[in-house]
Amino acid sequence: MIRAGIIGATGYAGEELVRILTGHRETEIVWYGSRSYIDKKYSQVYQNMFRIVEDICKDDDLEELAKQVDVIFTATPQGFLAGILTEEILSAVKIVDLSADYRIKDVAVYEKWYGIEHKSPRFIAEAVYGLCEINRDRITEQTRLVANPGCYTTCSILTAYPLVKEGLIDGNTLIVDAKSGTSGAGRGAKTANLFCEVNENIKAYGVAGHRHTPEIEEQLGYAAGGSVTVSFTPHLVPMNRGILVTEYASLRRRADGSLPSEEEIRAVYDRYYGNERFIRVLEKGACPETRWVEGSNYVDINFVVDERTGRVIMMGVLDNLVKGAAGQAVQNMNLLFGLQESQGLELVPCFP
Amino acid sequence: MIRAGIIGATGYAGEELVRILTGHRETEIVWYGSRSYIDKKYSQVYQNMFRIVEDICKDDDLEELAKQVDVIFTATPQGFLAGILTEEILSAVKIVDLSADYRIKDVAVYEKWYGIEHKSPRFIAEAVYGLCEINRDRITEQTRLVANPGCYTTCSILTAYPLVKEGLIDGNTLIVDAKSGTSGAGRGAKTANLFCEVNENIKAYGVAGHRHTPEIEEQLGYAAGGSVTVSFTPHLVPMNRGILVTEYASLRRRADGSLPSEEEIRAVYDRYYGNERFIRVLEKGACPETRWVEGSNYVDINFVVDERTGRVIMMGVLDNLVKGAAGQAVQNMNLLFGLQESQGLELVPCFP
Amino acid sequence: MIRAGIIGATGYAGEELVRILTGHRETEIVWYGSRSYIDKKYSQVYQNMFRIVEDICKDDDLEELAKQVDVIFTATPQGFLAGILTEEILSAVKIVDLSADYRIKDVAVYEKWYGIEHKSPRFIAEAVYGLCEINRDRITEQTRLVANPGCYTTCSILTAYPLVKEGLIDGNTLIVDAKSGTSGAGRGAKTANLFCEVNENIKAYGVAGHRHTPEIEEQLGYAAGGSVTVSFTPHLVPMNRGILVTEYASLRRRADGSLPSEEEIRAVYDRYYGNERFIRVLEKGACPETRWVEGSNYVDINFVVDERTGRVIMMGVLDNLVKGAAGQAVQNMNLLFGLQESQGLELVPCFP
Amino acid sequence: MIRAGIIGATGYAGEELVRILTGHRETEIVWYGSRSYIDKKYSQVYQNMFRIVEDICKDDDLEELAKQVDVIFTATPQGFLAGILTEEILSAVKIVDLSADYRIKDVAVYEKWYGIEHKSPRFIAEAVYGLCEINRDRITEQTRLVANPGCYTTCSILTAYPLVKEGLIDGNTLIVDAKSGTSGAGRGAKTANLFCEVNENIKAYGVAGHRHTPEIEEQLGYAAGGSVTVSFTPHLVPMNRGILVTEYASLRRRADGSLPSEEEIRAVYDRYYGNERFIRVLEKGACPETRWVEGSNYVDINFVVDERTGRVIMMGVLDNLVKGAAGQAVQNMNLLFGLQESQGLELVPCFP
Repeated sequence: MIRAGIIGATGYAGEELVRILTGHRETEIVWYGSRSYIDKKYSQVYQNMFRIVEDICKDDDLEELAKQVDVIFTATPQGFLAGILTEEILSAVKIVDLSADYRIKDVAVYEKWYGIEHKSPRFIAEAVYGLCEINRDRITEQTRLVANPGCYTTCSILTAYPLVKEGLIDGNTLIVDAKSGTSGAGRGAKTANLFCEVNENIKAYGVAGHRHTPEIEEQLGYAAGGSVTVSFTPHLVPMNRGILVTEYASLRRRADGSLPSEEEIRAVYDRYYGNERFIRVLEKGACPETRWVEGSNYVDINFVVDERTGRVIMMGVLDNLVKGAAGQAVQNMNLLFGLQESQGLELVPCFP
Repeated sequence: MIRAGIIGATGYAGEELVRILTGHRETEIVWYGSRSYIDKKYSQVYQNMFRIVEDICKDDDLEELAKQVDVIFTATPQGFLAGILTEEILSAVKIVDLSADYRIKDVAVYEKWYGIEHKSPRFIAEAVYGLCEINRDRITEQTRLVANPGCYTTCSILTAYPLVKEGLIDGNTLIVDAKSGTSGAGRGAKTANLFCEVNENIKAYGVAGHRHTPEIEEQLGYAAGGSVTVSFTPHLVPMNRGILVTEYASLRRRADGSLPSEEEIRAVYDRYYGNERFIRVLEKGACPETRWVEGSNYVDINFVVDERTGRVIMMGVLDNLVKGAAGQAVQNMNLLFGLQESQGLELVPCFP
Repeated sequence: MIRAGIIGATGYAGEELVRILTGHRETEIVWYGSRSYIDKKYSQVYQNMFRIVEDICKDDDLEELAKQVDVIFTATPQGFLAGILTEEILSAVKIVDLSADYRIKDVAVYEKWYGIEHKSPRFIAEAVYGLCEINRDRITEQTRLVANPGCYTTCSILTAYPLVKEGLIDGNTLIVDAKSGTSGAGRGAKTANLFCEVNENIKAYGVAGHRHTPEIEEQLGYAAGGSVTVSFTPHLVPMNRGILVTEYASLRRRADGSLPSEEEIRAVYDRYYGNERFIRVLEKGACPETRWVEGSNYVDINFVVDERTGRVIMMGVLDNLVKGAAGQAVQNMNLLFGLQESQGLELVPCFP
Repeated sequence: MIRAGIIGATGYAGEELVRILTGHRETEIVWYGSRSYIDKKYSQVYQNMFRIVEDICKDDDLEELAKQVDVIFTATPQGFLAGILTEEILSAVKIVDLSADYRIKDVAVYEKWYGIEHKSPRFIAEAVYGLCEINRDRITEQTRLVANPGCYTTCSILTAYPLVKEGLIDGNTLIVDAKSGTSGAGRGAKTANLFCEVNENIKAYGVAGHRHTPEIEEQLGYAAGGSVTVSFTPHLVPMNRGILVTEYASLRRRADGSLPSEEEIRAVYDRYYGNERFIRVLEKGACPETRWVEGSNYVDINFVVDERTGRVIMMGVLDNLVKGAAGQAVQNMNLLFGLQESQGLELVPCFP
């Protein structure tokens, strides 16, 4: 039995970790960390857990926690883990970090986009970027620190990855128009996230400046074998869960000026994802919709070739709290402990 | 392995049966019946099931189905099952009927409230009303036909049952003000259920005439040991899932004119439900909310004693598609086959 | 031109006052009071007002304001106005108070339900309860202080008033089950009112203890000619605007034991409300729905006689920000200044 | 007094016409055409109109209607008007057509994208494309037929128009990612538009093939002075009203390779729209949001220059039923009759 601790257990991602791990047969949660609710029953913060979780919320004592558990999930604000992580802790416990602290290899890029100083850059090189479908081989029982990817990032990257990797599209023409449910904004009490402010509305935000941009660019740059600059625009949608990305890119024409065919592109997607447990490339003509993956670890992907414009329009959806956060974190944990990668993640999407 | 067939598999309750049974280790669905989508892939009707269910929808051939399966779930309109059920079928297979056809013992009452003739009243006496927490003893491996209770009914009855049974309230003072999510209205293409008609709105409907009324009265009448007449008013709420009932009843005063205390009433609830796997009597002061049971088989119940008016206000919530339909149907199936009652129903409520 | 000032202009009720008064031909808003946004452009707080309102938010200086305007609207927390109101201010300006400070005549009742000391009980007797349809005659150019009724209260009282007044129902059997959109909870940044907490959920709150209860009881008591005790239960609905009340009461039987007929009851409603500009008694069989009054000053009312239980089920809806707050405040202002009562309130409900 | 008739009065756009014209002082609706509800009271179809509209729905007799009214609004399916329009009718009455029948000058393009034969191409040349802010000079008392633009189209064109017209962007790099509320899908009873199907979901549809594409291309082509090919992707958002377009285009660099500055671009927008009554170019940094224009005839526009990618991201919002349909139709009517263009359209956006 893997003993797990969660720091930030009362945020939405933390609570989703609790939901998923509660159904994971090889894991036991022994520490519900929550600075805001210390000594309060967890089930009084999340009443859905009444009679399921009997524990009390505890403080964020990472050192103490490292002694008691096998794995720590940090679902915490940017800078938290970087500020307190030590070699001693990492020697004692594996960490899956749901924050951005160790996702970006270039510390200057991190500090520029996040506007904070990175307090422990010495661990960045070691951290593995936990996008399982791409970096699976590097997430092993020897790995100590996993940087769990962001929700927008996971969806944006996986949707375009095969075509970038195969050179079918030029990464610098890539435009990612992303739409997210409101749980992505967290549980903080902000006026902008009140029901009446979000309901019956859609808006873009962070235009040309959202922090997930460099993360997308770095990972797609590895795929492209060179630097990639993308336009990324997130939008807030009046729904609880789900992210949809609509991605536009110019197809590279063949020597004879013709476009790659729909079949060729489909074959590429199938080659990359045909055996993936959690990526479903839909049938021709079907558009991914967030409702069809809600509550599950799936990413649904499809595309349309637009002969008129020479572009491919790619679409991808996931549940931002599952594959975009807690589900992928558990997927990473499974890899870290040599379990079956889908353990505890056999969640059937719940509709309606 | 129990072989199951579903008639009406493409309605919302049918689809929820598929979701639940997909995770049930002792069951295999071998027949997806859907008159509307014959020969279409099930996963094209419900894209969440892509790569999970590979089957094709079939017709409603109950006789043929009875030969192939151990249990049939009928998630069909009123009158369907009553119109085709035969002794031959019942000899071959167990049936859990999610329609109202066999819920009401008095056929005249059924015909009055539903406005249709009952075509097979001979099976009514045999059918067991499948409210597991109350009728558990009568749902056994010998039972052939279970009348699965309605969603409003399950919530309304379980919320008031202990107090009616113990005579703490007078059933004839009972007022049930019920609020339901829109999945309860089904997947039929009706203008009244379009997004723009339901969203940003609340309304009552079927006032003083809703068909679940006699079902509530019959079952609470058994508890009271005499006839009970209630006011029942359903409302449509702009959300997908969930039912909340707010129930008002006058407390019977003691000989000295005093009211039963909060503690006494709580003790009664605890005695009836303290050991129930799927009923959670909340802590004092906590109001049941539909979000805390979403996706699960739980019923959350609580109450407030109002000294000023001499009434008790009882509240209960459930997920109308789970405990109000498919979950309870599986709970009944488990009893019918001697399995653990909670098999496949260990669903943690999913929030947000 | 009436010069108006608003204290609390950046709450939802305050903003609705701005919307309505902007279209009122006899009024000019000259003071946008908002303690939270002093010196900020009003249209930066509410971007819908961009290029419509050019003003800057100001402080809450009631004395200064009284010198500059003809009427002050206070859309402020309980206790605010009571804490600063003086004879000098009231001599200079008319006040329409949207808070509860002067609604309840018995100061002990106010202090009990609101849990705060009333700082200026000397003005309570003078204040007129501004439920225009009932107290119209007392809201005149001589009136200085109007206590604008609460949103739940307006809806609850108007729905039952004719039947209570005519003695057709016993007020002590009255149960008010009320459902409100979330704008009623205000614009304060509270976790409980975040989108993800309210969306896909319904709950009761303040059960047997909500502060609008004594206000309903006092006003219906005047109608009944004696004290009335009611059960009042508010619920939070995932929508922006609108209140629906479902009210249950036992009909008083005639000497021969028979119930009053549907026609008799309808005749009473028509007699009271047939000429009211803002109350619509619907046609037989039509249920009031909040969507049909959204954005308008209407109250839609209807009822069903339930022969089986001897009860009448009354239903009423209004827009909580219009007839439940800002619209009624303007209606009161019109009366205070001798204008046509419907001036600026000819708002056609906006659907969908 | 202008006498107006509406064909298709019981669709959402038709009903919005009724709402707006009811408040228009120079117009009287004398014909509520609705093939689906002939002889039914209009206020029984739309209960918000109870006691506001007393009329009965009538058939679609365009010839008879032409004799009785001064202007006809056709809010009808594609092909309807083209199928019955005659010179005789057009000689008798002005027509504002809310369908696509006369929007596209090249009949072959129309027939290709709409998949139907155009039955009266002889009127296409005469029809004026009623995008008032651009074609105002051509909509006069001499005009007989106005092709009222589509909702997506109005928003897409107005957002990019100044930059295309001034040559600051290359139209062929333009990508329009559009998001619409569900009222845009109409009131037809389709499963895909049921509450439970739309709620808690976002999806793209009509990818690379939506019918508004050629309309956008034609109009922007006029602005560019040459053909323009765009990517246009509509999305369905779980809200009633509102369209947001997020538009991406490469900025044309100056001879020295530098990009036009934010100030230069802003100056262009201000020059085109600074005096427009219904277009608000927001302050720097403010993102357009659909909630801020709901219920009004405004289009809110803003943009961000992205130095990293050399692109400008433009954003525009409108209420699809007002500026996207009925409001613009009334704006056109005002021009057709020499009234003030904003007559009856001084609607303050309603929030929340």
